[in-house]
Order: sequence, then structure tokens, then C-alpha cells
Amino acid sequence: MADRLRVVIVGAGFGGLSAAKELSRAPVDITLIDQQNHHLFQPLLYQVATAALTPAEIAVPIRQVLRKQDNVRVVMDRVEAVSTAEKTVRCESGQDIPYDALVLATGARHSYFGNDDWAEHAPGLKTLDDAFALREKILRAFEHAEIVAESDPAAARRLQSFVVIGAGPTGVEMAGAIAELAASLMRDFRHLDAANTRVILVEGGPRVLPSFAESLSARAQSDLESLGVEVRVNTMVSDISSDRVTTGNGVIEAGTVIWAAGVKASPAARWLGLRPGHVEVDETLRPEGLEDVYVIGDTARLEVDGAPLPGIAPVAKQMGQYVGRRLAAAAKGAAFTEHFRYRDAGALATIGRNRAVADIFGLKLTGFIGWLLWGAAHVYFLIGFKNRLFVVLHWLWSYVTWQRGVRLIMHDAPKLSKRV
Amino acid sequence: MADRLRVVIVGAGFGGLSAAKELSRAPVDITLIDQQNHHLFQPLLYQVATAALTPAEIAVPIRQVLRKQDNVRVVMDRVEAVSTAEKTVRCESGQDIPYDALVLATGARHSYFGNDDWAEHAPGLKTLDDAFALREKILRAFEHAEIVAESDPAAARRLQSFVVIGAGPTGVEMAGAIAELAASLMRDFRHLDAANTRVILVEGGPRVLPSFAESLSARAQSDLESLGVEVRVNTMVSDISSDRVTTGNGVIEAGTVIWAAGVKASPAARWLGLRPGHVEVDETLRPEGLEDVYVIGDTARLEVDGAPLPGIAPVAKQMGQYVGRRLAAAAKGAAFTEHFRYRDAGALATIGRNRAVADIFGLKLTGFIGWLLWGAAHVYFLIGFKNRLFVVLHWLWSYVTWQRGVRLIMHDAPKLSKRV
Repeated sequence: MADRLRVVIVGAGFGGLSAAKELSRAPVDITLIDQQNHHLFQPLLYQVATAALTPAEIAVPIRQVLRKQDNVRVVMDRVEAVSTAEKTVRCESGQDIPYDALVLATGARHSYFGNDDWAEHAPGLKTLDDAFALREKILRAFEHAEIVAESDPAAARRLQSFVVIGAGPTGVEMAGAIAELAASLMRDFRHLDAANTRVILVEGGPRVLPSFAESLSARAQSDLESLGVEVRVNTMVSDISSDRVTTGNGVIEAGTVIWAAGVKASPAARWLGLRPGHVEVDETLRPEGLEDVYVIGDTARLEVDGAPLPGIAPVAKQMGQYVGRRLAAAAKGAAFTEHFRYRDAGALATIGRNRAVADIFGLKLTGFIGWLLWGAAHVYFLIGFKNRLFVVLHWLWSYVTWQRGVRLIMHDAPKLSKRV
Repeated sequence: MADRLRVVIVGAGFGGLSAAKELSRAPVDITLIDQQNHHLFQPLLYQVATAALTPAEIAVPIRQVLRKQDNVRVVMDRVEAVSTAEKTVRCESGQDIPYDALVLATGARHSYFGNDDWAEHAPGLKTLDDAFALREKILRAFEHAEIVAESDPAAARRLQSFVVIGAGPTGVEMAGAIAELAASLMRDFRHLDAANTRVILVEGGPRVLPSFAESLSARAQSDLESLGVEVRVNTMVSDISSDRVTTGNGVIEAGTVIWAAGVKASPAARWLGLRPGHVEVDETLRPEGLEDVYVIGDTARLEVDGAPLPGIAPVAKQMGQYVGRRLAAAAKGAAFTEHFRYRDAGALATIGRNRAVADIFGLKLTGFIGWLLWGAAHVYFLIGFKNRLFVVLHWLWSYVTWQRGVRLIMHDAPKLSKRV
């Protein structure tokens, strides 16, 4: 046993999990550390935030995923430090875990571009906890608006206004989903004026979905507008407070603001004693000078043809598979000279019911066909038969009934202000 | 409009909701106030706490339930006071809601018999928030035990020990469910010793399920014991701390303690200026001297043949229906001389897979048949087609796979102690 390669993987997202799975038959001892007990299918997280899916439908216990893989030990713990000299990982529980090869796949958090005080008013969406908090905030806004609809119409309008900052796939999907949620809620709130609901998507650049072809951006924008979303491109945000967003083109009053504009890497760079931010890696996915450390997924920055690879699931997954194959070869003493190459299959984003844009293998799809493809792709990549079944059923149910299924406010409410 | 009877119902549990529904065709204006946005099917709450069902499967938005009922206005707010002189209800948001008839159906909270400091260490189960917190505590206990299994076996044993206090239906179902959850987790935790898992059910009285026939109590106890639950009857608890329960028969070391031993009424008595606790009502479900106030469900205390009616869903439901019929008659100016009579259909409790005891219309059922009946009854009383479908699917899936589907720890963990 002592001479089996000890692989420590930090993070059980798309990158870390695919590295572990790729090593399933290799003569290695893997320790997979994550601060959560579940792998999260982040691409559908916005559907939890907008009451369309339940948390359990897009998350699966890490132990359950790897139940049949004998060479992996799962540890729910937080990494506090890495010693590249002693080749150990220090965890919050006090344990030091030794490694021969270390894979850091710790993802990213939101970046407010230096305005960290915005975080309080404009939360982002990375964890189930984030999605939960956002769902409660959105649903509570409608409940409060219903109470003050007659006594304070201005407050009701503000409570019914939602600003999404950043028009990448997350921002576009979020804005569309909120517009649909708001429309479906109107049947249940008898004092609210549907005309008061505003969903505003703010983007600093010239178009939504900047990573897509221009024709798809245009289609996504018109799809959003047909759902009632106000799209404001070329609009920079200069300030965010609890009830307004200040932009270069004026002030927007809104009770709920959602951040989808930027991410920064997790603390992996700090653990390695490198400059904060994404960890620059070469085509073997290692930072310069660190022979036994791999950094993958959103945590890494790899330039290809002058531009960094995007922080999306397929990149993380392929990086994890690459590192897995590389370490499997090392464990067997086999040569491995291959460099990492990203195979870009395209991109998808949905705007709402029957609406999506897709750019797959050069094929551009929109509308109902794009939407079916989007749904099929997401169900396919979900882990677990049960999750697939339940997500499809939930979607079918919502499609047929036009209802959102998970409209629960579960946590004790903050005390209602006397003047909402 | 001004002369329509104004009915204010506080609480959308079984009692309040059935009162509102009974009034669906009556010429009244109903305001239904609840601090939550959802009606909760409490009899299955323990399944959320033990990772078998998701919260959305046993809860449904109140607005959605009453969508088609035009004479009801739903308000999510907290009641702070009642003025029986001015006939108004004061809410946290500042609004005063006038009533001609007031129905208080605000349920119950846990009672620690004067030891309120036990609440921190021995949480009970009344809301989705409670169930969530308990689920996280149970799952986290296994994760921590896995980390310390080798370095500190005594701590692991403590973390794998669960005490349930109170052997009524809630306590029995909870103890059985934890035993089954623990057994199913053993496949996924490789360092844990299954023999370390202990589930101890503590009851002050002489038998479990004291409200059932003695033969069913005996069967429930043997069913529990076959699942590995240690049943300790005639055992009074004298102290509870974070890692131990002190009883008249010795100390039990356990990392998780759950309270299922007693409830006290909600603040309704205080609102009415009455003695704290359950509100005594007569057979018209009104407290003495208050002509226009009805108190129903767990909030009320109605003695029948010398014993108070139990705090269970059927009682609350029938009380709500009675008050609804009574107010419908009043609204039409019709005479109504009927008194409330509880029709006792019996009681059910499940111990686990294929195990339940039922006493229905005098028929005593146990084992697989009892369990099928238990499942059918619970699905039947769930509100909403979607919830019924998803609960049945979830149960089928768990039955076939022997897995628990909702093993998520979602909230940011408290910092792990260096010495767990």
C-alpha cells in the first residue's frame, strides 16, 4: 500500500469529481475533500433560486456518487493550508493529509471588482445556500408588496422590481426565470398590479451573452424582451444599496438585486503562496515550478490562443479527466506526454419556456428546438437516475400547469419593518 | 360588502385551512394570516428531518391552495396582539385587521416543562426550519464521526448516538427513521463501525405509543427493537447537555438529542388576556365570555369525557370544519345549535420499512398491511396532486434502492472543532 500514489483532490465539483472518476481503476489512493457533502449541478442552480426545482434535485451526496469506487476516501472538511514542501494538506478539523499529487479544483466565488460592500445587497449564486437565500428574498418581496400594495404603492413597485447585473448565461437565465416566476405568481397575489413588476438586466458590454455569436445574442435579447425583461446594455454599475442600483444611465429602484457579473478564484492561489486570483497553469495544468500540484476548473487560468478558457462545466470536466489520465499513467509508471486540449462542443442558454439559444458544433439553434436541446443536455449531464427522473417530472409538471413548484419561504423571516 | 361577515383566521395549519375551505361558498370576507407562506403537512415532517423527503413535497403555498376561493385574502404576517374590545388583530407590519369573527388556529410549540435551556441541545420538530436544522445535525454527525473514527473512537461513538425523548407517534416514527437512515448510511461511510450507532428512545411512561392499545404498543416496541432502537420506558430525563442526557436510570452519551415529549400552546392565550397555555374552550369552541372568538386545533383544550382531545391533525381539521359551518350559518342568518363532536377514526404510526401499527375503526393492523395503510392514508391527506405524486415516487425509489434521497447539508457548517 505504501507505494501506491496518494492523490488528494480538493473540491468535488465538475473538475474534482471527474478527476476522481477517471482514476477509478488506477492503483492510487485518493482522498477527496470538500466542505460540502454534495456535488452540485450548478448550471441549474438558478432554477432552485426561482422556485422551479428543489435543492435535492440538482445535488447528490459525494459519497453516494463514489460509493462503488474503492480507491477513494471522501472527507467533508475545509482546507486551511497546503504545504508544498511537506506535501500535506491541512484541514480545519486538525488533520494533515499527505499527498504525492495534489489536485485543486475549488471553484470560484463572486467578485465585486473591489466593491465588497455590494455583496450584502446584490448576492450571487454559487451554492445551494445562495440559491435558498435568493428564493426566500424573491418570494418574500412579493408577500411584502401584497401587504403594502394599497397603502404604499411606491414601496410595492420597488418590491416588485428586480435587477440582475451581468448578462452572461447565468444572468440571462436568471432574468428570464424571474420574469416567468413573477408572471405565474400574479394569479395568486390579488392586490398586486402585474404592471408593477419589473425585471431589469444590466450589462456593461454591448450585448447579452457576449460569448455567443452575435445573432444568438440578438435573439436572446428579443426573447428576454418578449418576457417583459428590460435589457440595458452598455450600462456600468457604479453603486448598489439595499433598494437601488446606480448606473451610468441613471438610478433603478429595486428591492432585489442579483449579482451575475464576475467571479474570482477560490483561495487556492493563497494556499500555494501565489499571487491572489486564478492560478496560471501550463498545458499540463500545473502552476510553474510545482511538479505535483494540478489546478483545474474555475480555479485555473489557462490561455489558449490568447484568451483564457471560460469558467464553465465542460472545461472543468475535461481538465479533471486529463489530470485523472495523467495520474493514472504515473501510477502505472507509464509515459504520458499529452498536453491538455479543450474540445469545445459549444454553448447553450435558456431564456424561458420554449426559448433558448444554442451554438453546438457550429450549429445555431433557437426557440423551441434550442430549448428542447437545452433541457436534454442538462438532464443528460445531471448525475443520478433519481435526479434525472425528478427534474424531468418537475419540468413537465411546470410546463403543463404554468406553476412554480417550490415556492417555500422556510427560514424565520427577518422582522417585518413597520414601513416596508 | 360592508355587511358581509368579516372572518379573520390566524394560522393556516390543518385547523385554519379547513375552516377557510368550509367557508368557500359562504357570503363572508375571510382574511387568513400566517407567518409562513405555506401550509405544512406536519405528520411527515420527520421524513424531511431524516432525509427521506424534500420540504417542497410536504408543503404547499397557502395562496396556491386557496387560489380559486374568491372570498379569502391571504396575508403573510405575524400577529402581535388581539383587541377583543375593538375587534381587531394587530400585525407586525403595522396593519390592524378588523373582524366580526376571529378564529385562532396557531398550533403549538415545544414545551420543555420549565427547562427552556434544554431547547438548544434537544430541538423539536414543528416547522420546516426545525426539520432542516435536524437533518443537517444528523448528517453532519456522521461526517464528523467519519473524520475522527480512527483518532478518537469514543468521540465517534458519541457522534453516532442519537437520543429521542418521548415515545408518542412523533418520537416512535423519528427513532425508527433515524435507525433506518443510519443503516443506509453505513454503506457510504467506510471508516464508521455500524456497531457504534445507537438510537435510544426514552419515555417517561410505562410504554411506547401510550395513546394506542397495549397490544399495539408492544408490537411497536418489538418493531423498534428489531431495527436496533433501544427502548427505555419508565425513564425520566433530568438533564440535557450538548453531548449527554441524564436520566433516572443513568447517563446516555449522545451527540444528537431530539425532543418529542411535550408541547405548549402558541401565544393565543396571551393575545386574549387569558392564562398562558392552551385555551380552554366549550363545545362551541369558544373560550368563556368571548362571543366572537374561536380557538381550535393544538391551541385549544377541549375536555371530552374527562380527557382533553389529543393535538393531532384530525381533531384540528374537524374543529376547523365545525367553526366553518357555524360561521357560514351565521353569515346567512341561519340557526346553528349543533355542538362540536369529535369523530375518532383511530390512529396510525409507522416504525419503518414494512412496519406500522394502526388502530382504525376498532381494527388493529400491524406489519406490512399496517404500513401500506399508513402510507395510503398519509398520501391521501396530503394537499396537491404534485405533492402526492412526488411523495409516492420518492417512497418507491427509497423502497427499491434502500437509499435516502435528500442527504444534503446545505448551510454553511459551523466551524469544525479541532477536537470534535
